[in-house]
Amino acid sequence: MLTYSFEKRGNDSLYEYLYKRIKEDILSGTLTADEKLPSKRNLAKHLDISTITVENAYNQLMAEGYLYSVSKKGFYVNDISSQMPIAPKRPERIPDVRDKKNSYFTDFTDNATRPDSFPFTIWNKLMRLTMSDYADELMVRSPSGGILLLREAIADYLYQFRGMHVTPEQIVVGAGTEYLYNMIIQLLGQDKTYAVEDPGYQKISHIYDANRVTCVPVALDESGVNTNALNETQADILHLSPSHHFPTGIVTPINRRYELLTWACAKKNRYIIEDDYDSEFRLVGKPIPALQSIDTTGKVIYMNTFSKSLSSTIRISYMVLPKELCEKYNHHLSFYSCTVSNFEQYTLYQFIERGHLEKHINRMRNHYRIQRDRILTCIRNHPYFSRVKIKEEHAGLHFLLEIDTQYSDEELIKKAAQKGIRITCLSQYYRNRTTSSSHTIIINYSGIQPERIPESIQLLFDGIFSDPTCHTTN
Amino acid sequence: MLTYSFEKRGNDSLYEYLYKRIKEDILSGTLTADEKLPSKRNLAKHLDISTITVENAYNQLMAEGYLYSVSKKGFYVNDISSQMPIAPKRPERIPDVRDKKNSYFTDFTDNATRPDSFPFTIWNKLMRLTMSDYADELMVRSPSGGILLLREAIADYLYQFRGMHVTPEQIVVGAGTEYLYNMIIQLLGQDKTYAVEDPGYQKISHIYDANRVTCVPVALDESGVNTNALNETQADILHLSPSHHFPTGIVTPINRRYELLTWACAKKNRYIIEDDYDSEFRLVGKPIPALQSIDTTGKVIYMNTFSKSLSSTIRISYMVLPKELCEKYNHHLSFYSCTVSNFEQYTLYQFIERGHLEKHINRMRNHYRIQRDRILTCIRNHPYFSRVKIKEEHAGLHFLLEIDTQYSDEELIKKAAQKGIRITCLSQYYRNRTTSSSHTIIINYSGIQPERIPESIQLLFDGIFSDPTCHTTN
Repeated sequence: MLTYSFEKRGNDSLYEYLYKRIKEDILSGTLTADEKLPSKRNLAKHLDISTITVENAYNQLMAEGYLYSVSKKGFYVNDISSQMPIAPKRPERIPDVRDKKNSYFTDFTDNATRPDSFPFTIWNKLMRLTMSDYADELMVRSPSGGILLLREAIADYLYQFRGMHVTPEQIVVGAGTEYLYNMIIQLLGQDKTYAVEDPGYQKISHIYDANRVTCVPVALDESGVNTNALNETQADILHLSPSHHFPTGIVTPINRRYELLTWACAKKNRYIIEDDYDSEFRLVGKPIPALQSIDTTGKVIYMNTFSKSLSSTIRISYMVLPKELCEKYNHHLSFYSCTVSNFEQYTLYQFIERGHLEKHINRMRNHYRIQRDRILTCIRNHPYFSRVKIKEEHAGLHFLLEIDTQYSDEELIKKAAQKGIRITCLSQYYRNRTTSSSHTIIINYSGIQPERIPESIQLLFDGIFSDPTCHTTN
Repeated sequence: MLTYSFEKRGNDSLYEYLYKRIKEDILSGTLTADEKLPSKRNLAKHLDISTITVENAYNQLMAEGYLYSVSKKGFYVNDISSQMPIAPKRPERIPDVRDKKNSYFTDFTDNATRPDSFPFTIWNKLMRLTMSDYADELMVRSPSGGILLLREAIADYLYQFRGMHVTPEQIVVGAGTEYLYNMIIQLLGQDKTYAVEDPGYQKISHIYDANRVTCVPVALDESGVNTNALNETQADILHLSPSHHFPTGIVTPINRRYELLTWACAKKNRYIIEDDYDSEFRLVGKPIPALQSIDTTGKVIYMNTFSKSLSSTIRISYMVLPKELCEKYNHHLSFYSCTVSNFEQYTLYQFIERGHLEKHINRMRNHYRIQRDRILTCIRNHPYFSRVKIKEEHAGLHFLLEIDTQYSDEELIKKAAQKGIRITCLSQYYRNRTTSSSHTIIINYSGIQPERIPESIQLLFDGIFSDPTCHTTN
């Protein structure tokens, strides 16, 4: 008869402890296949516990498949083919991929928003309002494309600030543009060829690569994507940022826009994905109108994010689908749940509806203008100013700095790093590199601490213009 | 000379209005390609506005590509190849895909959680604490897999309640399991063959289909996935819910689990995705241990969600990757930003850390037990009880009701619908249907209003057992 002492059972209940011990005996082979277990009553008597305790343990072992019962006969041990080792894993800790930026004094590659620029007080107030005013709505499942109130607010915003006429139903809200790109690939097809700007924002290519879809780079000229180069590819889909290209800063002019739309109209399956990621932050004049706003043919998928305008840690983006694709989405992909929680959707809805988004963007545009001017002033007043050329400083949250130097881009990056300044060069954003060195640094300034600007520029210039004979001492 | 009246400019500034009118004249062809515009000074004088106003308008038109300037000569109209119509779109409203469930008195297909079961007061309190205590952390970008505090809390929870030994680094947090399935496909490869249980949870197949990956159904026997049937496929990846299969309710016993692990170990690229979606809600005895907890070979990807245990509107799920895949994720996919906002991650972290999750699950388990017992009592006390058979009622949030009937499953569904009751039948969950009618209804009870239970069962039975001669009158 099975004999277990219950003294060492710790916090386990009697039944749990009994269940564990019998399970151990089965797994260790002490109890063998088809061995009959004592009846519940006999085992209870033997162990001086109640029959119900034994019954609970037997039932759990039955449910997990360790025992089987034969009607009117009793309980038997199942045949466990223990080919597998059963010792619990004690995995080593796997080193996490962590950002190395903290070791730099200033990181000009970082395009994050500054934490202190987030409208925390207003956002908190609206979160409280959401909890109290939308308690019921919060518990109702969101449509796949997002709650209607938010999509209506976004449609109004796009009409007022981007000159776009879209219906709320065309809008799909998702947890970040990266997620939405994955949806677009599923919507348009993994068998299509996706063209990306070269140079361009690398994450886009990473997403196409991770989905193993064919991704071809298309060269730019001074007006953006070169139409001849595009026609030479097999591309079905073109991804571009016509209002402000990263990293070159090119604004695609109106005639090139029409050329690209003409390209898209030439074949049924062709589409243009317009990534309008920082159009709000043009620092002179008015925002450049969206390509979508002149598209009368349903060929442009418009995409934008609140991660740029609000905070990098707010994961809410949206896309506007042309009518035909909208119907295709509803038919094939609306089984997907919306990836943004209701709570944040209602909070953002109120933020836009009450005019806070507009105010915040205006405030941030001023802030970025001041930030940019501070950096430009430091550069212009620097003794080495004659050896640099500032480019594309009027739009978006970065500009270019062309350096008069003999050093390769790799050497420039290394020399800046030795002074605690992290930079990237234009050449790094090419998929098809024609020249290995562009001597052009990208200055992202949205996340730079204002008080560090003068020292950062000094360190950068000290680094990149340092004499080769002395840079080993740094 | 260009002549515009500024009287009708409405809210536009002078420069905005001038910019719009010149743009219109270029687009309409009134101003033609290479036509020279008046100098800024002359136009300003002519229109009685300041030179700076004209300059701003010209600059904006330059930035958008409508004008070009020639040094020391002046401004010229660009050649706009206006092949495209430019009238703004006035799209019709596209009908949104909306849930039809509101038209039913009771929806037994709905597996959502009840809004009133969500621990709103505690969650709100924790949200407030998050705003005050984690203000700085909220603005720091989350690692791709989620904030470490939350992943540590999940690892602890899995150790305590699922007997799993995992490190926080193995955990990837995402906005819903659907999103995580997309990540798994990118991680394991679009070229792999994914096996799904047949019958099974349909959304999983939809996701594989939307990604155009090969998805093969594998037949079940009474122990779950049939290993022989599995071996006959070319499957690399097996997706299953061993602790509680949907919709059959099967618990995969320990010997079958070992067989499946043995299958996975036979080839390098084979993996098992364990979807543990409602393991917390076993209503008798202890939860069934996770398959992951007996896997010593790194072949099981474990997946779970807080949408089941907390609320359908909380979009937070997670997966636990075996060490090797974890390194692959870090290398290839950690460029993806985490899709759950920091705010909800910190709130959930506190919810788990302070013991609320455990308490909530215990409370919900009792709630669901009462809910289930109410429904079972109504069924057992019904005059038609002799014509039904209750199956798999001990686990998860649904059970099966086998009906003694001549009607097809389509007819049963229609007859129930005529009484305002929405149901699905087991046969609908097959990819390879062997029989067209199973006469087995799936009763999801987590979202049913308790006060409607007696009437719902009455209506259901009235419907499905109604005489064919009278059901036209309903």
